[in-house]
Amino acid sequence: MYTLKTIFFIPRKGVTFAKTKQMNTLFNHRSIRKYKSTPIEATLLEKILNAGTRASNTGNMQVYSIIVTTDELIRKQLWEIHFKQNMVLEAPVHLTFCADINRFNQWCQQRNAFPGYDNFLWFYNASIDALLASQNICIEAENNGLGICYLGTTTYAADKIIQLLNLPMGVVPVTSIVLGYPDENPNLTDRLPLEAILHYEKYQPYSAADIDKLYADKEALPGTKKLIEENKTDNLAQIFTEKRYKKSDNVHFSNSFLQTIKNQGFMNQ
Amino acid sequence: MYTLKTIFFIPRKGVTFAKTKQMNTLFNHRSIRKYKSTPIEATLLEKILNAGTRASNTGNMQVYSIIVTTDELIRKQLWEIHFKQNMVLEAPVHLTFCADINRFNQWCQQRNAFPGYDNFLWFYNASIDALLASQNICIEAENNGLGICYLGTTTYAADKIIQLLNLPMGVVPVTSIVLGYPDENPNLTDRLPLEAILHYEKYQPYSAADIDKLYADKEALPGTKKLIEENKTDNLAQIFTEKRYKKSDNVHFSNSFLQTIKNQGFMNQ
Repeated sequence: MYTLKTIFFIPRKGVTFAKTKQMNTLFNHRSIRKYKSTPIEATLLEKILNAGTRASNTGNMQVYSIIVTTDELIRKQLWEIHFKQNMVLEAPVHLTFCADINRFNQWCQQRNAFPGYDNFLWFYNASIDALLASQNICIEAENNGLGICYLGTTTYAADKIIQLLNLPMGVVPVTSIVLGYPDENPNLTDRLPLEAILHYEKYQPYSAADIDKLYADKEALPGTKKLIEENKTDNLAQIFTEKRYKKSDNVHFSNSFLQTIKNQGFMNQ
Repeated sequence: MYTLKTIFFIPRKGVTFAKTKQMNTLFNHRSIRKYKSTPIEATLLEKILNAGTRASNTGNMQVYSIIVTTDELIRKQLWEIHFKQNMVLEAPVHLTFCADINRFNQWCQQRNAFPGYDNFLWFYNASIDALLASQNICIEAENNGLGICYLGTTTYAADKIIQLLNLPMGVVPVTSIVLGYPDENPNLTDRLPLEAILHYEKYQPYSAADIDKLYADKEALPGTKKLIEENKTDNLAQIFTEKRYKKSDNVHFSNSFLQTIKNQGFMNQ
């Protein structure tokens, strides 16, 4: 099973952007894992959520919903569901982003229109809508001095979130963020060199030498050696495959997420 | 089958943001469907693509790739694949965002680590990575005076894109954008009122009266009446269910996208 121990991240190092100069919000993003208890003012929160709705979405159908949870008891239940990560307990606002065809279906049914969105394509379209809105919200939050952290545990615990938040048929949680004023100031996290991610014109296969070169900086990070010692593995890659994201866990959560998507009515091909 | 006719959008109306005041990039987003032929300078494009890599991603594994296509012939082939939407032919840069576990797997294999990411959970994690990066890139593009448009046709034509762009096992295109200098200045597109999207604390069911109220402004848009006449339907909802996103098309593309995900090696539970 998935344990808290697997949720660690590679220690960060300073990264400079000599080429870009413009140090705007996008280039300054850090995930924040320690929060002050200061609440977020209602008008500021509303502005940030409005920024989410301006993102592109599928056919302007806006097939997503956002659950805004600030109640302490419900946030504690969400903390338990999200593998008891401290930041979930600390941050004053918890946002659960859902693929949501329920509202659109209900509108169609009230207009004598017969919706055909109970399939995987529309789960995926609705996921895209929810995810683009979430990223806009993160950026506008950071524009206003707030910190955020995505919770990848959302898909692992989708069934439990559905039960807690009373999500009806046609609604599946796809990601979550916690939101609040930062109580830490971490360095930027490392990234692979840009050429690792990009392919020009068409996909260019990686040679073994390419891979060695592209991962060399990550493998040489000061924190990597320590992590390998702590995890008792031979190298960094094995920390991912044997500790953080093991095959048995992946298969377990893969099956449960697919079952949840089906249970919520998105697999009626 | 899906035809070009189904790709129309609701006419836009002006939207004001009396409450927010700050008219930044996020609040000014419009999808751009007419482009100048002016190319994008290489250093600017690199900065924009770098902004994509700063987005949050799963375990800092960066399991996504971006195919940057500027070649005229390949862009013409992409235009055909994307249902011959004019903007795909016009815009000088075409970005295809892919869920990509191939690079990570190859790294693992070269390090005697045994990856277990050939399942739906990791297709979905990789999709999240690709989509958050895409939204960062759209925002940084708009920060620099460029326009963008997402291509929802990516999932409909994923198999053809895979063939054209030589995407290997472990790689699936999940969204695309076209990028260039705008040759139009459209009004903001309407959105549902914020309360349609939000649920406080837990999901609150919609009454029939709620739905009528939440969709009233959209149904009353000046362009809606004209659209209904053109489409010969009784109302706006039927334009979606009978013309734009019909059940038969949805089922067809749903099955083909699921088959593609399987073919690319993401359904080995």
